Amino acid sequence: MKKSLRPEIPRKSIYRLSIYLRCLHRLKSNAIRTVSSDALARAAGVKPTQLRKDLTYFGQFGTRGLGYDVEQLAAMITDLLGTRRLQPVILVGVGNLGSALLRYRGFEQEGFEIVAAFDLNADPRKAPQFKQPVHPMEKLPEVVRERGVRMAILAVPGTAAQEVANTLLGCGIAGILNFAPIVLQVPEEVTVNNVNLAIELENLSYFIQD
Amino acid sequence: MKKSLRPEIPRKSIYRLSIYLRCLHRLKSNAIRTVSSDALARAAGVKPTQLRKDLTYFGQFGTRGLGYDVEQLAAMITDLLGTRRLQPVILVGVGNLGSALLRYRGFEQEGFEIVAAFDLNADPRKAPQFKQPVHPMEKLPEVVRERGVRMAILAVPGTAAQEVANTLLGCGIAGILNFAPIVLQVPEEVTVNNVNLAIELENLSYFIQD
Repeated sequence: MKKSLRPEIPRKSIYRLSIYLRCLHRLKSNAIRTVSSDALARAAGVKPTQLRKDLTYFGQFGTRGLGYDVEQLAAMITDLLGTRRLQPVILVGVGNLGSALLRYRGFEQEGFEIVAAFDLNADPRKAPQFKQPVHPMEKLPEVVRERGVRMAILAVPGTAAQEVANTLLGCGIAGILNFAPIVLQVPEEVTVNNVNLAIELENLSYFIQD
Repeated sequence: MKKSLRPEIPRKSIYRLSIYLRCLHRLKSNAIRTVSSDALARAAGVKPTQLRKDLTYFGQFGTRGLGYDVEQLAAMITDLLGTRRLQPVILVGVGNLGSALLRYRGFEQEGFEIVAAFDLNADPRKAPQFKQPVHPMEKLPEVVRERGVRMAILAVPGTAAQEVANTLLGCGIAGILNFAPIVLQVPEEVTVNNVNLAIELENLSYFIQD
């Protein structure tokens, strides 16, 4: 994948590629070797035209009448997403939500390893409940450097989020998964993905009113 | 709020209104009664022009030079979002992620109560670890009807998600917070908000490559 090609893929296509990848993993574990674009689209819940369009970023490689090679397509998507190796991630803010995320084992299955957590009040008595070490904030730059971390999960309160984000960027973090209810101000080259569970529910609440 | 006005507010504005609401709650708890649009915009991390535009959906009500009444604005946003009362929510799929969400106490603070959980293998031995009852799927229609539930959190595997979503819609659920890695097919009047933590990380992973 040439670097120059990357920014041309729209965000929503990247999101759908992640979904296709999960479908391909399921097919693989069921010993299925090739899949038609129609069948893969159905499994992912998208229109076949959408799927074919998303896959044009890889050039022509499906065999007409035979479909896609499951393993090859999975490998190509994995390469594009940059998740071939287990990626180190840090988590900042070990409150209610941060604790739940630290206990959640789903990240590793998907190629991400939370290598350490950080909290203003890193209580050593709290740490034993987690697999990961919980450090005070001062230790953040050291861990990020030593482990080559580029991504962080931000689960601090809204009031602290921008300041912590600035610290993270200062240490070389380039991607933030932000759970704080605030729109983070970051330089253009930094990517922030926002997830706020309560806000998602609130948003639903608005749309379901009758 | 007239019903006919609702669909005109863009999704992203609704999202930002949720963020303003959280900022207003913080101001209120600090005994601050009025706030300028500049100060509120700064707290939320948005541009003042953006904030003023988002608030035009409520008509004119800020007093020039005095700013917004914190309590009044919070009440107006809460009304619009439909979260004045604690809203009942059900959760389907008590696996790794579903368990973490059931233990997470953040929803109630924000006006949502997970009243019950459902799982194909509702293991009575598992239930005691949660505050909420974990029922077999068969009990879903009954609980939804009795508690007047309109929103569901879907945390089942991708392979089961569409089928479970169909069941939910058949019971009158109108909003789904979907954690399954699949694009759900639903009728137009149903709202689906997708959250997939691993996919968000994967998406970040793509954008931080250098």
